[in-house]
Amino acid sequence: MNEIYEIQYALDTFYFLVCGALVMWMAAGFSMLEAGLVRSKNTTEILTKNVALFAISCTMYLICGYAIMYDGGFFLSGIEAFSQEEVLASSAEEGFAGASVYSAASDFFFQVVFVATAMSIVSGAVAERMKLWAFLAFTVVMTGLIYPLEGSWTWGGQEVFGLFSLGDDFGFSDFAGSGIVHMAGAAAALAGVLLLGARKGKYGSNGQVNAIPGANLPLATLGTFILWMGWFGFNGGSVLKLGDASSAHSVAMVFLNTNAAAAGGLVAALVLARLLFGKADLTMALNGALAGLVAITAEPSTPTALQATLFGALGGLLVVLSILGLEKLKIDDPVGAISVHGTVGLLGLLLVPITNDGATFVGQIVGALTIFVWVFSASLVVWMLIKVIFGIRVSEEEEFSGVDIAECGMEAYPEFTSK
Amino acid sequence: MNEIYEIQYALDTFYFLVCGALVMWMAAGFSMLEAGLVRSKNTTEILTKNVALFAISCTMYLICGYAIMYDGGFFLSGIEAFSQEEVLASSAEEGFAGASVYSAASDFFFQVVFVATAMSIVSGAVAERMKLWAFLAFTVVMTGLIYPLEGSWTWGGQEVFGLFSLGDDFGFSDFAGSGIVHMAGAAAALAGVLLLGARKGKYGSNGQVNAIPGANLPLATLGTFILWMGWFGFNGGSVLKLGDASSAHSVAMVFLNTNAAAAGGLVAALVLARLLFGKADLTMALNGALAGLVAITAEPSTPTALQATLFGALGGLLVVLSILGLEKLKIDDPVGAISVHGTVGLLGLLLVPITNDGATFVGQIVGALTIFVWVFSASLVVWMLIKVIFGIRVSEEEEFSGVDIAECGMEAYPEFTSK
Amino acid sequence: MNEIYEIQYALDTFYFLVCGALVMWMAAGFSMLEAGLVRSKNTTEILTKNVALFAISCTMYLICGYAIMYDGGFFLSGIEAFSQEEVLASSAEEGFAGASVYSAASDFFFQVVFVATAMSIVSGAVAERMKLWAFLAFTVVMTGLIYPLEGSWTWGGQEVFGLFSLGDDFGFSDFAGSGIVHMAGAAAALAGVLLLGARKGKYGSNGQVNAIPGANLPLATLGTFILWMGWFGFNGGSVLKLGDASSAHSVAMVFLNTNAAAAGGLVAALVLARLLFGKADLTMALNGALAGLVAITAEPSTPTALQATLFGALGGLLVVLSILGLEKLKIDDPVGAISVHGTVGLLGLLLVPITNDGATFVGQIVGALTIFVWVFSASLVVWMLIKVIFGIRVSEEEEFSGVDIAECGMEAYPEFTSK
Repeated sequence: MNEIYEIQYALDTFYFLVCGALVMWMAAGFSMLEAGLVRSKNTTEILTKNVALFAISCTMYLICGYAIMYDGGFFLSGIEAFSQEEVLASSAEEGFAGASVYSAASDFFFQVVFVATAMSIVSGAVAERMKLWAFLAFTVVMTGLIYPLEGSWTWGGQEVFGLFSLGDDFGFSDFAGSGIVHMAGAAAALAGVLLLGARKGKYGSNGQVNAIPGANLPLATLGTFILWMGWFGFNGGSVLKLGDASSAHSVAMVFLNTNAAAAGGLVAALVLARLLFGKADLTMALNGALAGLVAITAEPSTPTALQATLFGALGGLLVVLSILGLEKLKIDDPVGAISVHGTVGLLGLLLVPITNDGATFVGQIVGALTIFVWVFSASLVVWMLIKVIFGIRVSEEEEFSGVDIAECGMEAYPEFTSK
Repeated sequence: MNEIYEIQYALDTFYFLVCGALVMWMAAGFSMLEAGLVRSKNTTEILTKNVALFAISCTMYLICGYAIMYDGGFFLSGIEAFSQEEVLASSAEEGFAGASVYSAASDFFFQVVFVATAMSIVSGAVAERMKLWAFLAFTVVMTGLIYPLEGSWTWGGQEVFGLFSLGDDFGFSDFAGSGIVHMAGAAAALAGVLLLGARKGKYGSNGQVNAIPGANLPLATLGTFILWMGWFGFNGGSVLKLGDASSAHSVAMVFLNTNAAAAGGLVAALVLARLLFGKADLTMALNGALAGLVAITAEPSTPTALQATLFGALGGLLVVLSILGLEKLKIDDPVGAISVHGTVGLLGLLLVPITNDGATFVGQIVGALTIFVWVFSASLVVWMLIKVIFGIRVSEEEEFSGVDIAECGMEAYPEFTSK
Repeated sequence: MNEIYEIQYALDTFYFLVCGALVMWMAAGFSMLEAGLVRSKNTTEILTKNVALFAISCTMYLICGYAIMYDGGFFLSGIEAFSQEEVLASSAEEGFAGASVYSAASDFFFQVVFVATAMSIVSGAVAERMKLWAFLAFTVVMTGLIYPLEGSWTWGGQEVFGLFSLGDDFGFSDFAGSGIVHMAGAAAALAGVLLLGARKGKYGSNGQVNAIPGANLPLATLGTFILWMGWFGFNGGSVLKLGDASSAHSVAMVFLNTNAAAAGGLVAALVLARLLFGKADLTMALNGALAGLVAITAEPSTPTALQATLFGALGGLLVVLSILGLEKLKIDDPVGAISVHGTVGLLGLLLVPITNDGATFVGQIVGALTIFVWVFSASLVVWMLIKVIFGIRVSEEEEFSGVDIAECGMEAYPEFTSK
């Protein structure tokens, strides 16, 4: 009995670690995607933002984020409990009582990489014009407070400001975070973008929308593949248990459906873009795949594979329309992050009740509103404070010559571009 | 007993999922390899083909491919059985009877990524001149019918058109698909290339062969490393079982031999190219590594590590000669895919009897012929139909100015190349 | 009992294989990092060196390295024992006696990728001026003899030339190889760099240091992310056992601390570079992350996550100062490898006693000296021999026009750079 428990503990821990490593890998995916979709003169800076936001996210979540989200504590509480003796003692007790257990350290490792995902969404939307250090200051607050508090109301099971419980009172369900992670990131991004304004030259004086092509599409494609692969960990790990037949089958269904949804999203976006623009639009196809992934994330375990394909396809259609819609509204999002993660994140939440009897449309809407209102308004306040204190937008001259030299002092491709 | 069974079920399922994720990752490898080896003006299009073929493969295999290959059914049969209850019920019965079991969903996930691999081989060979939508139309038939039928005769255990059984009658053995996946993909590619003709400028009027260098060798190198890594899942997962000591050791031998063969292939191709051309030819070295991988794929579990290194080295030598030979024949394959996967795929099949007593040279040749004749002729018919209905080759003008603008409406590197 | 043993055997074997695949992936990381940090005219050559060194490392370690390090034998000894029957028989006996066991083939696979890591460190430091075939000749000796002998004194448990035992006599402890792998690689690199001299134009006649910017920073960033991810396998696999609760928790702590140290190193280097240079220096940030990883590698299992963050930050600060210091000394290391892996590798060794009672500063210093003196002097002798026999530096003309054409006969980016 003891040995069985130990093997399950080991297997579940390893499963979390493998899934966590895949989610960490998504940080590389966002970096490559964003670096490929901006202009070469702004590439070093977006790379710097991406690596720095990952490092800051990990550190802030360690210092206070995890405690806020799951412990009911604040500063550093719970962290020292990752030391070996205490954890094993407590988990062994639970284990022998039959609970599903794994190393708390593996749980932290899996959770911490989610925070960085939420924050990665922001960096793309504000690309090519936001000051680097202003962005990093926001990262500290977002990953140390705004996201963890929101997470405490959802996955953490706490009441929203002591008022109501999203889970108990509304049956809100978001399996791996279409809303909790993706729409949250998009809400923070939207607040920043509204304050920041569009890039110079994006919208002409006569209302025309100018395309600003990305400098390196192989990089953007690589980023999408990395995200696609990492998403197996993101969704697959969110089953939270592997070590019995039923859980293992759930994890397998989640992998299968995650892949099917991405495929459906890609095909749908590719075909719709063909109908609308007459061309096989690679960037729309990539965004379609990502949209399929976001759409299935709120519930990847209950749909059949065919349903997952269709849900993904819905995401792929919606993301194309959302990108076009935001352009009409003159909301400038260089990589389409608000559409992919925000608009389609909401779709994901609303698709849950179709295959999961435990969720209702009302509950999903209440949850979506709670997440959006909190993250958007808290972010807006923080962006405003940063704007007042440091400024958030680079000078016109810096924007024109590229933020790479101004912020980082080095070009991304010094030999490839002629000036 | 029950608990032991559940843990083995979970472990084997997880093993399939991890291996499947690695094989999915190979799609990124093929994309980067091909994007690095074509000219910059054709890069967006090859990326679009690669992401789209992966999505179409996953969808077609779900809709009918898996059913044809393993179920004896056709449209959608078996897919709804991935729903949790049914699968667990059936597998639990098998499990208690002592059979090796895992989630059927994990098996599908592992199988589906193989289809995409076969198809990825085609996209490289027809690069820089084939119409995008013609290629995608072929993808639908190849992944929904041609490959699954061929797979049903080999891994699926069905008789070839009711005539004979490759396994039972001939002892045909192809562990992870040197023939079933790689040579099959190359056969489909060859049919397309013969119909399509060479790229303009590849072969001069006086018979000279003009080198057309790839635009981005770091990308091609990255793609090769991705494929190398993903191949651990491709071959390692093909043991089909991990959860006892004997199976686990087989998986370990497969990882070890897969790596050794790639290393052997790389060194052999590098040295041979040095002797032939006087230079350390990077693209030949990369193709050597891939050839080593293809060569070992038909039987990675029975050779010793040293044998695997030598088999890989044979593959590495052969691929260099095959590339030179195809150029002599004026068969234009921009990335060398037909040589890597076709010529060396055949070598892989023929190497099996050396270390695996269950296989014979006659059986391997019959199997190779069956696969080649079917896939080549079926593909030729489909390519011809597509050619008649839509056309398969872009116009001379489009080829000259690059298919990126013509097909996708966007350049891959808009700031890097001067026109 | 038998079944429990078999499952643990399978789980531990799988854990080694997954970790080994992640370490193999580090080869891609080094390739991309180095290819991004050199100039475009030297990119094909550095890629060729990287793929070739990986292949040679795997082959040499198979032929003699593993035997020297762990078997007490030399040529090919032990390798045939990877054949299935023998291994299972022996491990089954050990297994039933209660020892922790896994497939010997998985152990070899995990160990072999470490050799390549050590060698990858060298290629970066000698980039842009060393002859390709001279480098590969050194690779043969380093991976077949110099590293394995050093490894036999540390992880192999042998006495240093029969004189003393680093483990038994001095309690030397290096969990995953800050010294055994990273500092060893840096020592070999330093010997080569001293013989080779600086790149033309790096140091002006008036003592000024000229920056030579890398050609492709997204590639360098990708390489860093790949290394970061692969390091989970590097350190996590070095626990050497997963299949019970205590080991599994150790693996989880190692993943958590490895990530925390990288994050700490990145933030510290970014901030220090900002204070020193006034800019958000991306390459320093990347080196900071790698330094954090190297710093924690000697002992990632005993620190708390907060300690790991701080140790990583120390590494991040030190690497910036070390890079500046080596430039003062006119030691030209294009990618900063000697600082990242050598200087910070030493730091990693010295940090061990802070959290691990079994180690002492004296023991760590003795171990560091032993490794450095052996690897540096043996490497120096080998480099000198190669210099005398073949020459190690390309001609001035070749260096000026780039080693890609001279050594490999092809450019990495033929369409992107104007000459």
